[in-house]
Amino acid sequence: MAANSFGNILKLTTFGESHGAAMGGILDGCPSGLAIDFEAIDRDLARRKPGQSAIVTQRKEADKVSFLSGIFEGVTTGSSIGFVIENSNQKSKDYTHLKDIYRPSHADYTYDQKYGHRDHRGGGRSSARETVSWVVAGAIAKQILPDTSIKAFVSAVGPHELDQSAPSFDLSVIEQNDLRAPDQLWAKEMESYIKSIRKQGDSVGGVITCRVNQVPLGLGAPIFEKLHAQLGHAMLTINAVKGFDYGSGFDGAKMCGSAHNDLFEKDGSTKTNFSGGIQGGISNGAPIYFRVAFKPVATLMQEQTSLNKEGELSILEGKGRHDPCVVPRAVPIVEAMAALVLADAYLMNRTTKI
Amino acid sequence: MAANSFGNILKLTTFGESHGAAMGGILDGCPSGLAIDFEAIDRDLARRKPGQSAIVTQRKEADKVSFLSGIFEGVTTGSSIGFVIENSNQKSKDYTHLKDIYRPSHADYTYDQKYGHRDHRGGGRSSARETVSWVVAGAIAKQILPDTSIKAFVSAVGPHELDQSAPSFDLSVIEQNDLRAPDQLWAKEMESYIKSIRKQGDSVGGVITCRVNQVPLGLGAPIFEKLHAQLGHAMLTINAVKGFDYGSGFDGAKMCGSAHNDLFEKDGSTKTNFSGGIQGGISNGAPIYFRVAFKPVATLMQEQTSLNKEGELSILEGKGRHDPCVVPRAVPIVEAMAALVLADAYLMNRTTKI
Amino acid sequence: MAANSFGNILKLTTFGESHGAAMGGILDGCPSGLAIDFEAIDRDLARRKPGQSAIVTQRKEADKVSFLSGIFEGVTTGSSIGFVIENSNQKSKDYTHLKDIYRPSHADYTYDQKYGHRDHRGGGRSSARETVSWVVAGAIAKQILPDTSIKAFVSAVGPHELDQSAPSFDLSVIEQNDLRAPDQLWAKEMESYIKSIRKQGDSVGGVITCRVNQVPLGLGAPIFEKLHAQLGHAMLTINAVKGFDYGSGFDGAKMCGSAHNDLFEKDGSTKTNFSGGIQGGISNGAPIYFRVAFKPVATLMQEQTSLNKEGELSILEGKGRHDPCVVPRAVPIVEAMAALVLADAYLMNRTTKI
Amino acid sequence: MAANSFGNILKLTTFGESHGAAMGGILDGCPSGLAIDFEAIDRDLARRKPGQSAIVTQRKEADKVSFLSGIFEGVTTGSSIGFVIENSNQKSKDYTHLKDIYRPSHADYTYDQKYGHRDHRGGGRSSARETVSWVVAGAIAKQILPDTSIKAFVSAVGPHELDQSAPSFDLSVIEQNDLRAPDQLWAKEMESYIKSIRKQGDSVGGVITCRVNQVPLGLGAPIFEKLHAQLGHAMLTINAVKGFDYGSGFDGAKMCGSAHNDLFEKDGSTKTNFSGGIQGGISNGAPIYFRVAFKPVATLMQEQTSLNKEGELSILEGKGRHDPCVVPRAVPIVEAMAALVLADAYLMNRTTKI
Repeated sequence: MAANSFGNILKLTTFGESHGAAMGGILDGCPSGLAIDFEAIDRDLARRKPGQSAIVTQRKEADKVSFLSGIFEGVTTGSSIGFVIENSNQKSKDYTHLKDIYRPSHADYTYDQKYGHRDHRGGGRSSARETVSWVVAGAIAKQILPDTSIKAFVSAVGPHELDQSAPSFDLSVIEQNDLRAPDQLWAKEMESYIKSIRKQGDSVGGVITCRVNQVPLGLGAPIFEKLHAQLGHAMLTINAVKGFDYGSGFDGAKMCGSAHNDLFEKDGSTKTNFSGGIQGGISNGAPIYFRVAFKPVATLMQEQTSLNKEGELSILEGKGRHDPCVVPRAVPIVEAMAALVLADAYLMNRTTKI
Repeated sequence: MAANSFGNILKLTTFGESHGAAMGGILDGCPSGLAIDFEAIDRDLARRKPGQSAIVTQRKEADKVSFLSGIFEGVTTGSSIGFVIENSNQKSKDYTHLKDIYRPSHADYTYDQKYGHRDHRGGGRSSARETVSWVVAGAIAKQILPDTSIKAFVSAVGPHELDQSAPSFDLSVIEQNDLRAPDQLWAKEMESYIKSIRKQGDSVGGVITCRVNQVPLGLGAPIFEKLHAQLGHAMLTINAVKGFDYGSGFDGAKMCGSAHNDLFEKDGSTKTNFSGGIQGGISNGAPIYFRVAFKPVATLMQEQTSLNKEGELSILEGKGRHDPCVVPRAVPIVEAMAALVLADAYLMNRTTKI
Repeated sequence: MAANSFGNILKLTTFGESHGAAMGGILDGCPSGLAIDFEAIDRDLARRKPGQSAIVTQRKEADKVSFLSGIFEGVTTGSSIGFVIENSNQKSKDYTHLKDIYRPSHADYTYDQKYGHRDHRGGGRSSARETVSWVVAGAIAKQILPDTSIKAFVSAVGPHELDQSAPSFDLSVIEQNDLRAPDQLWAKEMESYIKSIRKQGDSVGGVITCRVNQVPLGLGAPIFEKLHAQLGHAMLTINAVKGFDYGSGFDGAKMCGSAHNDLFEKDGSTKTNFSGGIQGGISNGAPIYFRVAFKPVATLMQEQTSLNKEGELSILEGKGRHDPCVVPRAVPIVEAMAALVLADAYLMNRTTKI
Repeated sequence: MAANSFGNILKLTTFGESHGAAMGGILDGCPSGLAIDFEAIDRDLARRKPGQSAIVTQRKEADKVSFLSGIFEGVTTGSSIGFVIENSNQKSKDYTHLKDIYRPSHADYTYDQKYGHRDHRGGGRSSARETVSWVVAGAIAKQILPDTSIKAFVSAVGPHELDQSAPSFDLSVIEQNDLRAPDQLWAKEMESYIKSIRKQGDSVGGVITCRVNQVPLGLGAPIFEKLHAQLGHAMLTINAVKGFDYGSGFDGAKMCGSAHNDLFEKDGSTKTNFSGGIQGGISNGAPIYFRVAFKPVATLMQEQTSLNKEGELSILEGKGRHDPCVVPRAVPIVEAMAALVLADAYLMNRTTKI
């Protein structure tokens, strides 16, 4: 129900505006007895952090999480885990020019119409800064499933799609390039492309693919809690996401059943995996893979005509910080949301049999 | 939480296996004072019904809904609405050959692994017969939003995509062809194509597009209840769905922000609508449109090698009823789930302001 | 959220008006692999049934439950369990005199004010007939916890309180008297008392005590899901209930801590049990006991002045069926709701540790 | 579901251990456009604060709340409201003697058994310090219902019950005595009584009564969300609470229907109010009143025999802070939880009619 909560057993509730005092959340339902790897959390926060490279926003933030409860002597107690991340770099004055104007394709207009009262600084609640809390919670969720590997990477930038069958394709290099792509050559090309987009004051969209290996069999449930429906919901909550598909996805819609059916091996595994590791909404133990489509971010370093609160069209200048392509930084966010879904489904699955 | 419930305020909970006594559900949270148009419900049920044309399954069902509560003298009372649809055509014997064998790309294997005990008749709970209850509830949801028009249609069959800019494109003809496409010419071609697929004992996937007009402004909420995330979740719960995108969708990921931004008109409307009627997760009053990708159904009229419970590979014969292309019948299901999401968001939105 | 749902993992959703076609519900989250004892369900239904004895209402109902899903070959499948109980004895005409008049201390007035449209036949949704569905679900919940004994009994009728330290006190005789009291002598006296109340066309309140033995340790959770808060919520949903206390209860409020503290034995058990088997909201393995206070039912066989829809005071005749004392029939309802809470907490507790 | 969340539309989620860094919470679903009266929040926090008088614990805390989000320029934005209250007076060393011993009638034993890992400092999550967050949220909830008056007061201390028909009974004096009773004379007597209990190192229970006036008609819903069931759940979540009744309550169980029925006046009001302002689970506009029973707190300034983790009985010394009677400080907590229930039901009620 609540708009700021996600999950069933493992439930994240968040708060915070990008230019308020702090972001934060409460992770409820985390099992007791989990020895937290704090460095792993910091590592994921660092991956999400702005200002990491020349191809993302230059906003600088410490992004240091403080845990306020639920962990005692480094181990979870089963109580709710409260945490905050201070907003140390709140350049609110950067946003005074936005107080009375609605930026095109942002949430400014809809927030004002719905709520009548809005924190305009940096997008307020609609800012992607929100996802810093998701990364914290997701990093804990990953630790609930230590054997499961969740790896996201950039698979398209604008019109340029990664060839996943290329010889240079290599999952182990994802963190070795600024793009977060499993292909060093392609990453280099895309970085140049994004820099050219930046130079034009423009932005460009992209696609992230996520692969999950060693998924326990039996996660998800029929009908409304199908595992892929939960994953889709999770991904579609990420800022700028416009689409989600899993397994064969939109391409599968073009196929015939005789080619698409995944024939069994004797051990219950399948020869192909068009199902994407999920059948009838339940994981079958095969790798799960899915795609997430991101639109180009709406903030440009170009002048645009826009609407102000008086209903007049006026010129919106291109200033403030700018993220020419959001996908490199969204990689750890995709992983975090996937981890929250999978860890929740894992706990839920414990209640299945008598 | 519960796997068989959907929605927040307006909440549908369902039950039923395709070859059990009946399907049914409880629609909770429907406002009181709604004079129910029962014919509209029957009309949507008829649209979903199998055996309507040569291009869908020949299974015949009466699909007559009985309302057991919550409606008094034709008007809703605010109490929960219980309803059942009997399974009049339960050819359980058709399925005895499936008792000990797992059909490829079905839910048979995962259900057995997860639950250890399964109703194998006709897929049990995993059968698309479940959606008959969704259509009932969705038809009521549509009546909660009488001014909103929700129109779904087939926009691709296998590799063949509908040209929505063709002169023959016409939303008013959707119900005039068996395919449920807004283009009589294209529909004819696709019907021939599907018949050829049927002749081969094969199946083929497809895409449904849905357009929603006259959406109230302000539906949906930030963060985890973004309107498009709720729509995506709803669509991904439909059997055989592999993907969802809205507005510019996967194509939007290829674009630059300068082309993608929807510039305002003075009245708050926008020149373009790449946003798909939703900004920051909240409806902006512009038409909402989204796509839903369906895989080819897994049941074929061909022999396939499959796995039995003893872990042996054996031949699965192609018999039983067969649906060569599921998309024509899924059109009213897409509409029903969209209606449930929108009516729920509409009621929820009443609690927004002080 | 939803008004007609109860529980977290094991979740009951219900529908039905007393004079509609049927009552029923959906029990979601019941683990798979449970071999259902249908006779045990029928036994509890028979205990709740009206017309069992001279001291309760004479309304006769078959109260035969039909399971429509979720059970295959006698064993639960993990799917939602849909069930209906037909309303075979719908004397709606008995209620035409109630169409335009509000009965004192009933839900007539508040329903009309809240919903504007009401099924006046037999109280509609506010009728205690609703509890027939709770008894079905509760009887299944008991089977999830086969080792736990849940025994409720009448412990007060009007001003007459049962002496639980009397030598004639004997839990094994509860079902041997019409009152459902663990003391044959006292039961006889109370039956005479209730008959005298009936003769006057009056009604009288009472108290039910429930004792739960062999409760697993660790059920319930801190803060808002304390086990006793869930039990209290469950009991306060039963028609005519005005109060709930557990362990030392209202009497405990009169005590000093030095007398009230339950001192430990070496094995973790306690010398006394003022805690009522729950400490910090979590079961400690000791017997749980609690009391539930019922007001006298509002329907009398006496004339009363009442209000009609025109805002006029008029005479309400005393006719229709009449239940002089509701507590004997409420005994299985108290047990059913306790079982639903405990089985839900038991399943929930499986997710506690890593 | 989540153990640390309360409410449907207006939903409070909390975190914190009494000796951790901070307590806090997230209030979700608060309508936008509410100009927050921060002084009213501070006033309620001051009423709950320890160390206010000679009859409660001497622990001193600043109890200053910091709002981190959801309020912009003093007005709610409709976003989730995050807040923290630092634990400034964490004498953790006071609790080292409790690390390996289970205090009688505390949550120590059950937490250890359930979670296997526990923050023993000051009771950790089981401490009543948690309620500081409830008071913050409740103070906001009161502002959502500005016309409704929620007044709680002490109505019994140990065996001594307040005579609510005494001439000295006066609701306006509640905050003028340390006991928080509506009778200055009786308050004086009880203060002496509590001081004598304190001198003995003992504790004593008590009862709080709450009266709610100007309740909107129509709050609450049939079946499982009856208003009194929600109030009961809320009260039973407060530390040390053992019982709840409303309206005639346990005394009503002793009455006959002819005396208990609340006969109507022409305007829909009633001559008596045994119903306690709630009929069929829905408020009827009459005053709501209910009682909450508190056990004596378990921490004594006396030696007690207790159990340690090695399963040995040993002497537990009486040291640390001590609260001889918890009811004076629980008065604002009862009000806060009542306010949360009523404001939530008020928002929920907006979705009732078409």
